This record gives sequence, structure tokens and C-alpha cells, in this order.
Amino acid sequence: GEGKGKAERIFGFMDVFLENDPLSLQKDILDHVEFTVAKSRFNFDDFEAYQALAHSVRDRLIERWHDTQIIFSKKDPKRLYFLSLEFLMGRSLSNSVINLGVRDQFADALSQLGFEFEVLAEQEGDACLGNGGLARLSACQMDSLATLDYPAIGYGLRYQYGLFRQIILDGFQHEQPDYWLNFGNPWEIERVHITYPVKFYGTVTDEVLNQEKYKVWVPGEMVEAVAYDNPIPGYGTRNTIVLRLWAAKPSDQHNMEAYNTGDYVDAVVNRQKAESISSILYPDDRSYQGKELQLKQQYFFVSASVQDIIRRFKDSHKNFDEFPEKVALQLNDTHPSLAIVEVMRVLLDEEHLGWNKAWDIICKIFSFTTHTVSPEAPVKIPVDLLGSLLPRHLQIIYDINFHFVEKLKKMIGLDYDRLTRMSIVEEGAVKNIRMANLSIICSHTVNGVSRLHSELLKTKLFKDFYELWPHKFQYKTNGVTQRRWIVVSNPSLCALISKWLGTEAWIRDIDLLIGLKDHADNAELHQQWKMVKKVNKIRLAEYIEAMNGLKVSLDAMFDVHTKRVHEYKRQLLNILGIIHRYDCIKSMNQNDRKKVVPRVCVMGGKAAPGYEMAKKIIKLFHVVAEKINNDNDIGDLLKLVFIPDYNVSVAELVIPGADLSQHLSTAGHEASGTSSMKFLMNGCLLLATEDGSTIEMIEEIGQDNMFLFGAKVDEVPALREKGPALKVPLQFLRVVRMIREGHFGFKDYFQSLCDKIECENDYFLLGADFASYLEAQAAADKAFVDEERWTKMSILSAAGSGKFSSDRTIQQYAENTWGIQPCRCPF
Amino acid sequence: GEGKGKAERIFGFMDVFLENDPLSLQKDILDHVEFTVAKSRFNFDDFEAYQALAHSVRDRLIERWHDTQIIFSKKDPKRLYFLSLEFLMGRSLSNSVINLGVRDQFADALSQLGFEFEVLAEQEGDACLGNGGLARLSACQMDSLATLDYPAIGYGLRYQYGLFRQIILDGFQHEQPDYWLNFGNPWEIERVHITYPVKFYGTVTDEVLNQEKYKVWVPGEMVEAVAYDNPIPGYGTRNTIVLRLWAAKPSDQHNMEAYNTGDYVDAVVNRQKAESISSILYPDDRSYQGKELQLKQQYFFVSASVQDIIRRFKDSHKNFDEFPEKVALQLNDTHPSLAIVEVMRVLLDEEHLGWNKAWDIICKIFSFTTHTVSPEAPVKIPVDLLGSLLPRHLQIIYDINFHFVEKLKKMIGLDYDRLTRMSIVEEGAVKNIRMANLSIICSHTVNGVSRLHSELLKTKLFKDFYELWPHKFQYKTNGVTQRRWIVVSNPSLCALISKWLGTEAWIRDIDLLIGLKDHADNAELHQQWKMVKKVNKIRLAEYIEAMNGLKVSLDAMFDVHTKRVHEYKRQLLNILGIIHRYDCIKSMNQNDRKKVVPRVCVMGGKAAPGYEMAKKIIKLFHVVAEKINNDNDIGDLLKLVFIPDYNVSVAELVIPGADLSQHLSTAGHEASGTSSMKFLMNGCLLLATEDGSTIEMIEEIGQDNMFLFGAKVDEVPALREKGPALKVPLQFLRVVRMIREGHFGFKDYFQSLCDKIECENDYFLLGADFASYLEAQAAADKAFVDEERWTKMSILSAAGSGKFSSDRTIQQYAENTWGIQPCRCPF
Ligand SMILES: Cc1ncc(COP(=O)(O)O)c(C=O)c1O
Ligand SMILES: Cc1ncc(COP(=O)(O)O)c(C=O)c1O
Repeated sequence: GEGKGKAERIFGFMDVFLENDPLSLQKDILDHVEFTVAKSRFNFDDFEAYQALAHSVRDRLIERWHDTQIIFSKKDPKRLYFLSLEFLMGRSLSNSVINLGVRDQFADALSQLGFEFEVLAEQEGDACLGNGGLARLSACQMDSLATLDYPAIGYGLRYQYGLFRQIILDGFQHEQPDYWLNFGNPWEIERVHITYPVKFYGTVTDEVLNQEKYKVWVPGEMVEAVAYDNPIPGYGTRNTIVLRLWAAKPSDQHNMEAYNTGDYVDAVVNRQKAESISSILYPDDRSYQGKELQLKQQYFFVSASVQDIIRRFKDSHKNFDEFPEKVALQLNDTHPSLAIVEVMRVLLDEEHLGWNKAWDIICKIFSFTTHTVSPEAPVKIPVDLLGSLLPRHLQIIYDINFHFVEKLKKMIGLDYDRLTRMSIVEEGAVKNIRMANLSIICSHTVNGVSRLHSELLKTKLFKDFYELWPHKFQYKTNGVTQRRWIVVSNPSLCALISKWLGTEAWIRDIDLLIGLKDHADNAELHQQWKMVKKVNKIRLAEYIEAMNGLKVSLDAMFDVHTKRVHEYKRQLLNILGIIHRYDCIKSMNQNDRKKVVPRVCVMGGKAAPGYEMAKKIIKLFHVVAEKINNDNDIGDLLKLVFIPDYNVSVAELVIPGADLSQHLSTAGHEASGTSSMKFLMNGCLLLATEDGSTIEMIEEIGQDNMFLFGAKVDEVPALREKGPALKVPLQFLRVVRMIREGHFGFKDYFQSLCDKIECENDYFLLGADFASYLEAQAAADKAFVDEERWTKMSILSAAGSGKFSSDRTIQQYAENTWGIQPCRCPF
Repeated sequence: GEGKGKAERIFGFMDVFLENDPLSLQKDILDHVEFTVAKSRFNFDDFEAYQALAHSVRDRLIERWHDTQIIFSKKDPKRLYFLSLEFLMGRSLSNSVINLGVRDQFADALSQLGFEFEVLAEQEGDACLGNGGLARLSACQMDSLATLDYPAIGYGLRYQYGLFRQIILDGFQHEQPDYWLNFGNPWEIERVHITYPVKFYGTVTDEVLNQEKYKVWVPGEMVEAVAYDNPIPGYGTRNTIVLRLWAAKPSDQHNMEAYNTGDYVDAVVNRQKAESISSILYPDDRSYQGKELQLKQQYFFVSASVQDIIRRFKDSHKNFDEFPEKVALQLNDTHPSLAIVEVMRVLLDEEHLGWNKAWDIICKIFSFTTHTVSPEAPVKIPVDLLGSLLPRHLQIIYDINFHFVEKLKKMIGLDYDRLTRMSIVEEGAVKNIRMANLSIICSHTVNGVSRLHSELLKTKLFKDFYELWPHKFQYKTNGVTQRRWIVVSNPSLCALISKWLGTEAWIRDIDLLIGLKDHADNAELHQQWKMVKKVNKIRLAEYIEAMNGLKVSLDAMFDVHTKRVHEYKRQLLNILGIIHRYDCIKSMNQNDRKKVVPRVCVMGGKAAPGYEMAKKIIKLFHVVAEKINNDNDIGDLLKLVFIPDYNVSVAELVIPGADLSQHLSTAGHEASGTSSMKFLMNGCLLLATEDGSTIEMIEEIGQDNMFLFGAKVDEVPALREKGPALKVPLQFLRVVRMIREGHFGFKDYFQSLCDKIECENDYFLLGADFASYLEAQAAADKAFVDEERWTKMSILSAAGSGKFSSDRTIQQYAENTWGIQPCRCPF
């Protein structure tokens, strides 16, 4: 019949896959120039060429993603839903073509058209929809989920403004809104028909249906969530999964009777404000602002995602009994934890399952990962705010808490202190909902992000819960994807590794990397290894010169300290060390100076806009740099470079070019740390405290191959207790005094900064760790002059970094937490 | 060398034009399903098929547009810039494929895939970026400009919300925001790199440069204008021109130093408000609200367009002397008249030309068309508002006015009354800028939109100016494009016309249409003509039934009255006539009733949200309909249908299905009227007053072939003067009394409506014209029963409609006003 004829015709076209030979690629690119970018093919610039190129790649992503979807819906495996409010994806072009396996083909095709792939790739702006480590981790994990063929979907928010761009004016940080969508985004697919209404405010009423009483939420406001899909290709597989980001749009269901034009215009302009829900990423790393708009963002995100998940489940299942066998929900920190309450609400009020059945499902589907160590960080939501914005959710939280406390009383008796601590509701002048407690109580698994972190959770932060449910507590040490952090960002190293391992298989199977160890003493490898580092140092040096005109010596040690600026991360310790070094050099005679290892100290990182101390640290680095860089007496012995607007693409450039990298968090404050892993993979040596995942690195690489320093995690409390009695070295006092006395100017401005590291105020123990820090720096200097030894340490660093691939992390999650299986597309 | 190799390679690909055979079209459509719509080609619905189809058509539009651009920039002809704040484009798909000449090919290709072209075309939503006649006229004129190969560019605003959707609830009009971009818009091309900063507020300072003093405007606010290009294909030509619409985006040039997250977030969210400038179309037909936002819209539009025009000129010319030879600027009503001042400002303050030179240029480039008759309508902008928003522009206006008044004094002496009337500045308690005076003074030509309109301008509205500059005053009777209003909307009639004329050439050369007259008595044509009307009546009847469940008889006369609801358009007169007809039928015996011509009275049109009387008229129609339609005693003799949300695509359906159409404006109030032209082209008879362009229709078609009634334009003032002494027929008093006394309910609500047509309040002379209106209606009834006669009248209406093609209008503008020449792409 007709239907058959139609189907055959469509299938006929289907045989034709997109071709990847140079001629087909060129035709595709030029067609996109003409029809997508809508420029004449005789007149287009590098940016337009990039756009056309990106669209050609996008076509290929879409093709594979469709195939993947077909397999997923046919096989119907249990799926993982990865919920995170932040994803720091960076650029997509190079990563995509490499994962698709068509990089060289595209590069050839372009070069015949007179374009260079690398130049076009530089046209792409970063997608900065996250703050730092947590957000980049989510991005790395998506790459591993795709590569390992897991049936997963990421959910997030499509902020119109990503993390602010950092501009440095006169040494001070200024924030520039990051209107990243300004020039279009070829990496997303707008799904105009995948929209869900999201409700806010209003009241809860009762309704009787078949003699049962149900709650009905009558909202006071509605907005629409629209899906934007970002394909995530796996490497060495046809599988391509998707990161679905939600944007807020005004809801359509709205008539009005306006009595004058002004009212009408105002009403429409007001409705448009709905869009502000998803308009901006909160720029606070590891802190929750607790503003209404932020809570609205969280619920907007959660509600749309949960509706989508339940819709997908119901498309092919009749009964919620199967739900836990088909659905795993991962909560990336507490930001998306309202999802628990939202699923409960849907099961109770919309699916009418009854409390016990609904609760049973909840307990089987959620897993929760916390990324924080600090007892101040946990998110609390004021009951008044929650009750007004989400009245029904507050009721359900109270109900969950009631059931929990009742059960708890039976288990631990009337230990009111402990009951109070464990309750979801924090009593007090302002009542709060503790999102961490809610998440722990309702999840089957609570994960830490490193072994040390997990220990701290069990013994400190969540001690009460650990004692109750020890089985819930696990950890998966964070990891990063070698695809982006070696293959994309360090092509020379990538080629070298493959050459010496005799295979590219390590790109999917990171355990093979350890094979480099066998060649750690090979002179030929040494030679080539040094060449690779040099290439990357040249690239970085050129960037520095282009950026601020500073010429740096390639013979100097490139000493890099890049990450969000935080007191606990102790960028200040680094600056104090630099001042000390400067002071020492100044007092040396010419002969001694010859023995000094020249250094280029690179710092980069953003401060939250409201974080005064962090902003002062940035300014301090700049005034110190100004002084030292302009001191002709110093020359190449010491140069300071601040790299503004540190983000993923800057990291891709900086990390491969680093000789040494610093990770200085006071022990017990960094839950994991992930940038250290990237440096390690790139053969950069670490100068670090024994904190977070560094402890596991010591096991993998050996402490002889790292420069460790500082108080260990269990020494910290004792040191803090000493207070004013704590002895700090004279050099420390001296450098602080230099700042205080205006040696670098801005005396008054830096006073509060100095106060915070004085005696008993020195919470992060800069004084206590200073001597040990200087020793570690001296050890690094010593090692650096022994080229042989340094290169070997560098090789061993890379060789031992295999454990820190997110492939390993994800595999552990899949097996031990989510219970999902790979589901692979046939090629 | 390398460059050559590259060029050859790109040229090689160029040989391949897009193919239009079924197989190529199918591949294109399915590729767009997969890669643009990003749906699997095995699973897409009608809407997705429409999107893919639209993108395939878009590709072809872009191809021709590029070719057109190449020719235009090579030949560098004088260009017309058509500035209008409103364009009522309606749908684009059918129009595009017809103008491209690929409709049948696409229809075939689709049918083989199992889709019907017509069904997919119905998926498209209207682009309603305008209120009514003026806006649709702009759209028709763009079509003619493209078809006649003129080098023209349209400029407008890309409102996010077009004209509200009209919803009828319980007989009352409600307004629903028209978020028309919700599902994407394949007909526009976003030009992310074509952006201009637009400034507002601030102050004016002096600056000295080379010993000359210049004014510098230091703005207080900046937003960015981004271009969206909408290709407009010509028919029977490769030429494709563009309508460039501007959208407001936050400006990028903005750093800040935020001291807390709240400030930072607020600042970003505030910046986003910039977008509200282009967010909404003001829903007032022929009235200016005078709100700050509306003035901002006008200047935003003008500033971006002028920057674009000057940029294009400077790209290929060194010297402004040539400007008037290369640039013609058409002001569509006074809404864009700030363009005059903006060009002056750029020439003075940025190009530093000096007053005399700049003024000389201004006087040669602008032409102005006014669309209004009413002395209340002219736009006035309060001086305070203008001075705050555009301080420099106010200065320039004062300067222009000073020069003008000085010159005027020399010409007419110290006639202060006349000087006051002609001044651009209106003195008084609130000082105002008169935009019409500004436009007349600075334009080389002032056009009316019909002969009558022009007479009224010369003798009344702009008498003072006409006496000063008689040569400036011209008129170009409006026209509509037969491509949309016959070829797209009435394919059966189109085929019939081509058959009887033996050619399709009339689609480009409307003068041929008169050839139908030769066959006006041909029985075979009569037969076929009636069949066509029947087909269109069936389509309309089905729409009515689908819409509100009412079955209407195809034998009834379809009597249509569709246009914006206005007191001067006298929809109320129609309703009173209907009540009278109902009243008559009710009092007839069965025998007399058999002689009654059954009627389906269709009304449609939107009321401005704040226009109370217009909204009451809509409600009155509904209550009368409710009563009559439910009166079993009446049956098919009289049925009332209100078609909600009258817009272009509804018009395309309604007009071909109408037997009779009503155009009832009180003589002297409709400047032209364009819907009457569309009805005429579709062989629909007119029942009309002798107003606007109707007067010219009488000349073309003959008064015997129309049903004319009512006071003529020069009788109106006398009738008004009579006041209470004016005799009105008893039937009129009776029907008004029926409403007053609550015969249709809502007595109180309709009281003010009745008051406004009582005695001396009856400004629009419903009472005076009622008897004559009823006579015309009776004449129509009489003609309708004589099928032969009616069909002949219908044929003669269509045959005589040729003059009312916008092709004729545009040709007159090109030759007599703009001085532009065709510039045709070789095929
Ligand atoms: C842009 C960016 N910010 C922050 C981080 C996290 O760094 P760390 O783990 O050192 O805090 C990374 C990781 O590479 C990153 O790429
Ligand atoms: C949607 C719409 N509104 C208004 C008009 C103008 O109608 P009139 O000239 O009768 O006022 C037209 C013309 O066809 C139209 O299509």
C-alpha cells in the first residue's frame, strides 16, 4: 500500500551515510557556508568558516546520535540520568572530530580549501556553564559515559549568561557578562516541541477521587521549559549521548482582557521576565546564595528533568513497579536534590501511588555525590522561602522528615541532640531545610569524591548518618578524561605516548598508560619527551607574549597555579613564597644568582564577584608582578604572569606547557581536586599538600616523584588549637610585613588580607606551612637542574596518572552505584 | 599559487546549483529532517516535515539572494530603502515556492514521500508584525519590488511578540500574546555579525576638531541591534531581495566590578531588559501611543537602519556628494521619520559635512507617504520626552525648524497663524514635535495613497504646505500583489484565469487581466467561474464548521465584512442592517420568506486592546449572532459567523470564498483601503461607500457592477452640521431601540455604544446613511438571484481589478518618486 511505498522510499535514502572523504567534506562545508551561515561561498571569513565546519561536524554527531537512540529504545536498558546544575564543557569542535575519528579528514579537506583546522578551532568560544571543578567534572564524566557506551542522559540548565568573563583592569578583577550565545551555538539542537510547564507559588488544596483524598497544587505562576540537546560523542564507538539543557520561556497559556495599550504592553513585557529564570549562572564556587531566583532555577531544572524522565519511562512502561529497574538518578551535589521531592510529588499527587509505594521507589533510584568538605557549605533553604515558592514540596519534606524521625527514634532512642542534628528541618530563629540531610536520607548511596574525602564524611560531616547506615557510604575518586586533557590539548604528547606504547588503545583503555614506566629511563624517550614539553612551552610563551607583551625565557621553570581563587586553596601562600624568593635574589651576589633556577610563575583563576579576600589576592599578585617584572636587577630569574579569564580552553593551553604545578589547599579542605590530574597526565610535576586525591596520587606515583609539603590532615586541628602559640618562621613574618608596610603599594587595601594570616586568625595555616612550602620549592629547584631526573619524574607522573581517568570513575559508578550496563551501537 | 588553487576548488563546487527534480528535493527534505530538525527520518510528524520543507525552500531562496547581491554590488544602482515599522507578511511557504517556480516539483516530491503539500503548508504560523492595512501594504510592495527587479531593501523591527492573537470568550475579545518565534522561524537568517550600537539618553557636549566646533552626543544607555534577514523572492525572475528586521540585544561593551553576587546578578538581569525594546508590536491601528518605549522602538529601528545604509554606501563610495544618486529613503508614514534627523545628525556630527551640505542631501533623499486622513491621527512627540531620550536630535529638529521658519517668513510674510500651524514645534502647555510637518518639510515628495486621499491632503490636512510647495504633492493609489491574493490563495481561480487568457503572463503583467472582459458573457466561463467560487465557498464553510460547529448553506450569499474594527469603518452599520433584516424576516409570512435571499454574514477583525467602542461592537455582533443563529424560525435565511483572529492566512481563506464584501467607511475617512482590492481580484462584489480607492474602482469597473451607497465626501460636512435636525429613518431608530431595550441582552453594556450613534453624537453618520445602505443591500439581494448577472458582475470585478496591483503602485513610485531602475539577475 501507500504506507509501504513511502517507507521504502525513505529507507532508500537511508543507505546513504554521510561520507568523510575530502571531497564530500568540502562540499558539506561549502554548502553550510552558503545555506546555513548564509554567506556567499566566495566571501567568508575564518569565523564563518568555523561555523560551517561546526555544522558539518554537527551533522555527523546527529547521525550517530539517532543511531544510538534507536538502539537505546530497542534494548530499553536501565538508564542513568545525570543531574547537575553546572557543566563546564569548554569548546566542542576539536573534541568532537577526535571522538568521531574524523579529525585528519577534516584537516585535509580544509587545507585544500586554504584553511587551517587549528586556526578555525580558535574561533570557537567556550561554553562556561559552570564555576570550576564540579562543573568540569560533570563534563569529563559525560565524555566517559559516552565512550564507555553507557545509556545515560545529562540534564542541566542552558544559562544565557555563563560564568562571567574575568577582565583585569589596573590589577583588579572586573566581571563582564558572558553572553556566550551571541554568535549562535552550532553544538545545540533546539527542541521546540519538547517543552514542559513548570509551576511556582500558589496553594495546595484537597481533592477526592474514588473516595481517596489527594493533594492538588494550584500554582500561582507558570513558565515553560524548552529542551536544548547537546550531543556528546563517545571515542572509538558509534555511541553518542546527549546533554539536555533547559531554557525558560514564557508560558503560552495566557489570555487576558486588556483595557488599554499600556496594560497590554506591560503584561507582555512582564511575561518575558520568565526567561530570566535560566538567564544567569550564579558565579559562586562552593557556596549557595539562597536567593529566590536561585531556588527557582533549581526547581525549574528539576521539574523539567523529572517530567522528561517520567514521560520517557511511561512511553514504554505501564507500571511504576519497573521504575527502579529502568531509572537511576544521580544527584551532583545537593543543587538538584529537590528532584527527590519532585518525584515523590508526582508519584503521590499525579500518579496516585500511595505513600509507601512511592517512598519505596524513591529509596531505590537516587544516588548522591557530595563535593564539599566544609561544614558551612551545605545548602540550607529557609522554610519560608520554600513554602511560598513550592508549598506542596514543603509539605512532602515535612512528611518525609516525620517518617524518618519516627523510624530513627525507634533505632537510636530519644537522643534529642542527635535527632536534632539529623533532622531535615533545622529549628531556630529562621527555620531551614537541610538539603544534605534530605539527600542522604532519600538516596541509596552517598558518594565522596576521594578516599580522604570519604573518610572525612564518615568521621565528621555525616558521622551520625554513617553510624546509622554504614552501607550507604562509598567513594569514587574523581577523574578526568584523557580524550580532552591529552588527545585534544596535547597532540604532540598524544602521538609520543602512542608511539612508545605501540598503540592508541590507551585513549579508551587508560590502564595501558602505565606501560610508559618501562621506558622511564630510555634516553630516546627522554629526548622526545623534552621536545614535546618544549613545543608546549613555546605555545604557552607565545600566548603570554600576545596577551601582555611579556617575553618569558623557555629555559625557566614554568610554575603554574591555576584554579578558582579561594582562601583555602592558598594562592596567597604562593605569592608569599614568590615575595620571599624575590627578597632572597635581591640579597644575593652575582655568583649566587647564577645558581638560581629561573622561574615563570603563572597564576590564573576567577574570584567570586562578592568574595573580597579572593579579589585582594588577585590584586596582590598583580602589584607584586608589577614590582618584580619591572626590576631590571632580576631579569629572567623571576617573572610573574597572571592569565586572565582562566577557563577550559585556557587550561588546555596552560596545562601542557607547565613544568610544575601547585596545589596548596590546607589539608582536609579539598574534597578531591581535579586539575592536578590533568597536570599529571601532561607530565607536569606536582607541588602539593597531602589533601584530596593527592593522597591517592602518592600511591600511584610515589612520593619521590612529587614535591609534598605541609601539615597532614590530622595535624591540622592541633595546629589550629595552638593559636597565638603557633611558631611561624621569621621569613613569613618578613614577607607579610613587606606587604603591610606598603612595599608593593596599596597598603590600606591589603591590610585586611594580612590580618587574616596573622597568628590566631590564620585559619588556613599559611604561617605553619610556610617553612615546609619553601623546602618543597627548593627541592623542586634542585630537581629541575638535574634534567635527567626531572624528565624521568615527568614520565613517571604521566605513566602513573591512569587511575585518574574519569573512565575509571564512571565504571565504578556504573557497577557499584547505578547498576547500569553498556549498550553499544553496532558500527 | 595557493590562493588560486583554493579559488578553483571553491569555484568547482559552484557549478552545482541546487537541483529541483523530485529525487534531489526528497533528499534535501530528508536531510533537513535529520540534520536541521534533528529528527530521525523514520519518525517525524507533519510539523517537522513542514520545517524540513521550509528549510529546503530557504536554501533555494538563499542561493538566489546571493546571486542577486552579486549583481547589485557589481552594478551599484541607486537603491531604495523602504522603512516601515510594520510588515504583515503572513505565511511564507506557498508564496516562496510559487515565486521560485518550484511549487509543483515540491508537491510531487512530497507526495511520493506520503505527504501533501497543502497539509504541510497549514502547519506554518503567520508572521503578524503589523496591525492592518498599512502593514500588509508594505508586504505586498516588497513582493512587487522583488518581482519588478528593483534594487530595494526593506527595513523593519523583529518584534518577538507580533500582533496579539484574538480569542473570543463569551463573545468578548481577549488578547493572547503572539509568541510567534516559539517554534523557530526558517524564513529568517540571523546575521550575528551585522550589529550596530544604538544610543539613548545622555548629554550633548562640544568638541573642537581642526578649529571647527562639533557636537558630541555622550549617550547614557546603549543597546545592540542585530539583523535578521528575510529573503523576498520575485516571481518570474531570479531576483530575491531582503527584508532586514532588527532585534535588540544587550550591548557587549560592559564591564563592572561587583561587590556581591546579588549586584552582579541584578546587573546582568537588568541588561537583558534591553531586549524589551524590540519585544512587542504596539497593537494600535492608526494611533500613536506616545509612550517612551514606543519612541525608543522608533529610534532603535531608525538608528540601526541608517547605520546600515551609510555603511553600505561608504563601502563603495568615497564621497557623500554621490549619496542622493545612490540612496532613496521611503518613509512609510511618520513612524520612521526620525530617520531624517538621524541622517542629519550623522552627516553633521560624524561625517562633519557642515549644515548646508548636509541639508542639501537630506532634501534629495527622503520621500514620505502618509496613510491617514484624520486630523487627530498625526504623531506628536512631547518635547520633554524627545529631549531626554534623544537630546541631540531635539537640537537638530529645532535647528531645522529655525531655518524653515526663517525661509517661510520671507515667502509668506508674518502670517503668524499660518507660521504657527506650519512650524514643526507645536507650542502650548505641553510642547510637541509634529512628525508630519517634519516629514513634509524634509521630503522631496509627499504621497497620498489614493486620488481622493491626495485631494483631502491638499485641501485640508496639508493645505498650508500644498500652497507653498504644490510640486511636492503626489499620490500613488495603493495596490496588492496578485501573487499572494490570487495565485497563492485562490489556485482554482488562478488556473481559470490563465486558461481563458491563454497565458500566465498576467501574474507579472496585471494589465492583461482586462482580457477577461472579452469573455464576460461566455456561458462556459460562467459555468467554470461559478464552480471556482463554489470550491472556495466549500473551503470557507468547512473552516467555519471546524471552528465553531456551525453548518452554513452553500446556496446562501456569503457576505463578508473583515478588517480592523473601528468606528469609522462602521461594522456597527452592518450589524444594525443585520438586525433590521432579522426583524423583517420575523414579520414575514412563509411565502414572503421564500423570496428572501439567504445570507451568511461573516465578520472578522481585531479591536485595539484599549478601544472600548470597538470591543463593544465585537460583543454586539456575538450577542446578535447568538440570538439569530439559535432562532429556529430563521433557519438558513440568516446566519452570523464571527471569524476570530483575522490575519493574513485567514484572509487568504475568507476572501476567495466571499460573494459580497462590505466596505462601509464614512466617506472621507478611509485613505485608501486595500482589502477591497483583494476581494475584487477574487471576483467578489463590493458593497461600499464612495471613499478612498473605491472611487477609482468605480472608474475601472463601473458603478453598475458595484453596490454603492451613502453620503459622498463633500456631503458629509453639511450632514454633520445639521446635528439634531438630521432626519434618520424610523427603521434605524427601531433597531437601535431594540439594542437599548435589551433585546439581545447586555443592556447596560451597550448603552454607551447606542449613545454614540444618537442624533448629534452620530459623528460617523450611521443614521444618515442607513436608508441608502439598506437600498444597496436590497440591490445586492436582487442581483444575487439573477445568477447570470451576478456572475458577469463578478467576472467584470476581477477583470477590472488590474489597476489595483501593487506592481502598478511600485512602478509609479520607482519612476515618479524614487528614481530607481530595475537591476535584473541573469537567469
Ligand atoms: C576552568 C577550570 N576551572 C577549575 C578547574 C578545577 O581545578 P581544581 O581542581 O584545581 O580546583 C578546572 C579543571 O581543570 C578547570 O578546567
Ligand atoms: C489581516 C489584514 N488586516 C487588515 C487588512 C486591511 O483591510 P482594509 O483595507 O479593509 O482595512 C488586510 C488586507 O487584506 C489584511 O489582510
